[in-house]
Amino acid sequence: MDETPASLDPGLVDRFVAIVGKHHALTAPQDIAPHIEEPRGLFGGLTSLVLKPGSTEEVSRILKLATETGTPIVPQGGNTGLVGGQMPDATGREVVLSLSRLNRIREIDLSSNTAVVEAGVVLQTLQEAADVNDRLFPLSLASQGSCQVGGNLSSNAGGIGALAYGTARDLCLGLEVVLPTGEVLDDLRKLKKDNTGYDLKNLFIGAEGTLGIITAAVLKLFPKPKGRELAWAGVGSPVAALALFGAANDRAGTALTAFELMERTPLDFVLKHIPGVQPPLAGEHPWHVMLEISSGRSAEDARSLMEEVLAEGFEAGHVADAVIAQNETQALALRHLREAMSEAQRPEGGSIKHDISVPVAAIPEFIQRAGEAVQEVLPGSRVVCFGHMGDGNLHYNVSQPVGMDRAEYLAHYRSMNDAVHAVVRELHGSFSAEHGIGRMKREELIATQPTVATDLMRRVKAAFDPAGIMNPGKVI
Amino acid sequence: MDETPASLDPGLVDRFVAIVGKHHALTAPQDIAPHIEEPRGLFGGLTSLVLKPGSTEEVSRILKLATETGTPIVPQGGNTGLVGGQMPDATGREVVLSLSRLNRIREIDLSSNTAVVEAGVVLQTLQEAADVNDRLFPLSLASQGSCQVGGNLSSNAGGIGALAYGTARDLCLGLEVVLPTGEVLDDLRKLKKDNTGYDLKNLFIGAEGTLGIITAAVLKLFPKPKGRELAWAGVGSPVAALALFGAANDRAGTALTAFELMERTPLDFVLKHIPGVQPPLAGEHPWHVMLEISSGRSAEDARSLMEEVLAEGFEAGHVADAVIAQNETQALALRHLREAMSEAQRPEGGSIKHDISVPVAAIPEFIQRAGEAVQEVLPGSRVVCFGHMGDGNLHYNVSQPVGMDRAEYLAHYRSMNDAVHAVVRELHGSFSAEHGIGRMKREELIATQPTVATDLMRRVKAAFDPAGIMNPGKVI
Repeated sequence: MDETPASLDPGLVDRFVAIVGKHHALTAPQDIAPHIEEPRGLFGGLTSLVLKPGSTEEVSRILKLATETGTPIVPQGGNTGLVGGQMPDATGREVVLSLSRLNRIREIDLSSNTAVVEAGVVLQTLQEAADVNDRLFPLSLASQGSCQVGGNLSSNAGGIGALAYGTARDLCLGLEVVLPTGEVLDDLRKLKKDNTGYDLKNLFIGAEGTLGIITAAVLKLFPKPKGRELAWAGVGSPVAALALFGAANDRAGTALTAFELMERTPLDFVLKHIPGVQPPLAGEHPWHVMLEISSGRSAEDARSLMEEVLAEGFEAGHVADAVIAQNETQALALRHLREAMSEAQRPEGGSIKHDISVPVAAIPEFIQRAGEAVQEVLPGSRVVCFGHMGDGNLHYNVSQPVGMDRAEYLAHYRSMNDAVHAVVRELHGSFSAEHGIGRMKREELIATQPTVATDLMRRVKAAFDPAGIMNPGKVI
Repeated sequence: MDETPASLDPGLVDRFVAIVGKHHALTAPQDIAPHIEEPRGLFGGLTSLVLKPGSTEEVSRILKLATETGTPIVPQGGNTGLVGGQMPDATGREVVLSLSRLNRIREIDLSSNTAVVEAGVVLQTLQEAADVNDRLFPLSLASQGSCQVGGNLSSNAGGIGALAYGTARDLCLGLEVVLPTGEVLDDLRKLKKDNTGYDLKNLFIGAEGTLGIITAAVLKLFPKPKGRELAWAGVGSPVAALALFGAANDRAGTALTAFELMERTPLDFVLKHIPGVQPPLAGEHPWHVMLEISSGRSAEDARSLMEEVLAEGFEAGHVADAVIAQNETQALALRHLREAMSEAQRPEGGSIKHDISVPVAAIPEFIQRAGEAVQEVLPGSRVVCFGHMGDGNLHYNVSQPVGMDRAEYLAHYRSMNDAVHAVVRELHGSFSAEHGIGRMKREELIATQPTVATDLMRRVKAAFDPAGIMNPGKVI
């Protein structure tokens, strides 16, 4: 924030404010503040105007005016993104457009198993609405109490449930999108099969608001399982975990609704720093797995399938010890161990984070080679590895050596990223599995992806947003 | 074919031929003939050159030369498409590029559950390779003995298995694509989660070769079920079938691997015209359902789940009668009844076909209203309705009135299409669910889709293929 921010022309501000009404336009610094800070404090920005439109039509009028006047627009949902995609830049010339008032669930169709929701609906609100209707909306994230559906789609969010149900992309059947010109693309169709021309929908999903603004979506709902069983297993190695995953997947298919791999270190951090938690297993194990089985038939069916999976794991020698939650309280306690891992890392000092994916088969090799690479960059660094094994997606975080100065450690951010991502590239993986590109990874995207791909992306951007007003400086 | 075809310049032909070698370039009319006729004989075309490249690199050199010389290229797979997407036009100036020699399965990765296959691999060959490896490749089509994976992806093929496993789009993790310039986009990654920029992959899937040529793909494999049970049920109405589907889906989830709805008429045609078939049930029913349950655990598990589903259907009054196949022979016989429905329609005279989808909940209303619309266009026309109910996708064919002249009937093709598709539009459905647009439905796409959508599609086309050499006159 060293630059002196420019102000928006007051006359222009008035024109934008007139669209949404005074009560829905934020201009006072204290009102704007929450919209220009994000959870990790890595990306700041400035703006003198936050607009909160109340309808698709108002979004359309805002973008039309933005195109006419060349005003950059930064769409923002629940402001929980981790890569700065929702933050304005430091110039003060960008207008933040908050989708939070577009928060209606327009329809739930129980026969088609679909929900039509506006972009500003909070994820947990949709989960609860599905639940009340005896349905499941399976997208589940740590930030679900505040993140919004529009942001989930714009960043193609993942999470634990993606294993069986897919990412946000897979859960979306149709979109309503406002284009930079203000035109509205109404493609809110509830169709699983639709081959009428090019797939525009999937361009907007994951585009982080750089091609247009998603204002509503048709999302898939699923039958609510009648039984869910959660288990925790200690395993000797990532190879053993991979074998257990393969066998569980063969037997359970999409009834295997979670398969999380965790190294001992993040579990130790949770046991050390989070109050009121208990070790999941009596002995000590270098690696841990949390798995969930769901059944549309009954709790007994889920239980017997879980027992089969674990019995096979014991027999084959993949599982050293395991426990099945005996009730909902125990299940919540086990889940909490996994979910607290990010938080439990904080007291251990600086953390350099990676959100990577590799082919599932390459997980053990990645863990081996990335571990070596980390020690080469900075001996004593502590790998804190946990994530969605069945998706090949690991949150491969690296905590600072014990006793080191935090700032000194974080000075290695780039070299650590480079070393880990080099292993990812060699294994044909992705350095951005589920958190997006935003501001954080844009340079790396451009530097490391094939030119033929980034060139096509630039052509798409130019074709959809020729004036370059949509969330500039993000993605590409 | 009224126009006098132009010839390609002989010097240019020589340059193309030099890329693939003489033995892999077809120039004699009898060799070319199979490449300019398609299954239904609706779309013909002319060409004086069919190229059969043997590598991605040769495809690249062909497209580079095509761009340099402004030569239109028509990619062709197994030539089984039903909308003319694989046919050259009548000018004789388009070169057909057959992918059939790119037919290697490059890799099967059992831990990642992926196959890397070239575009010219025949679908059934891939199914068999998966099977040998104790895996399932679930895409399944009537034309699987000759259609090719590249064509399946380019048309986003569907079929019965899409209910549980998704369409071709859902089965694809990564692509290798040759762009019109000859540049190769190598995105053959086996990643379920990858948010590195815009989703280019899904643009090429379903684009029918109008943006580039898919030369290879990473496809998902699934565990091979240990048990599969097939049942046939007689039901009183589409409403009853919808209720049965809802209950089956709640209980079985993705273990419900087929749910086909059929009116009595197509079944009667099969029983009348196909030798050696038996009625599936003793009594007569206005509507029929074929459903399949798969289990990763055991045959007993699949059987008990099927029995639960049918018992619930009987108790709720949705099912009037049902039979479960007692062995593989019986299962094949039941499947054959469904699969023979297209063939059995032929002896009944002219058929006007529709490949539609509507929201699952709207299937009964569609059937009611489309039935009325058909009678308004031509009283006595016989609706032959069957398809993938769980996907909201029906093959809504209309056979001619008994005794009418075939040509006289087929003169109603456009008005019948218009009437049926009007109902589809009112129910927010699609007039092209799984067969694509090709040449057949291009005008209708442009006439009936929102201008904002077709305009974006044109911009995509211009951005990817500025010279307009990729399969001109198809899709958009």
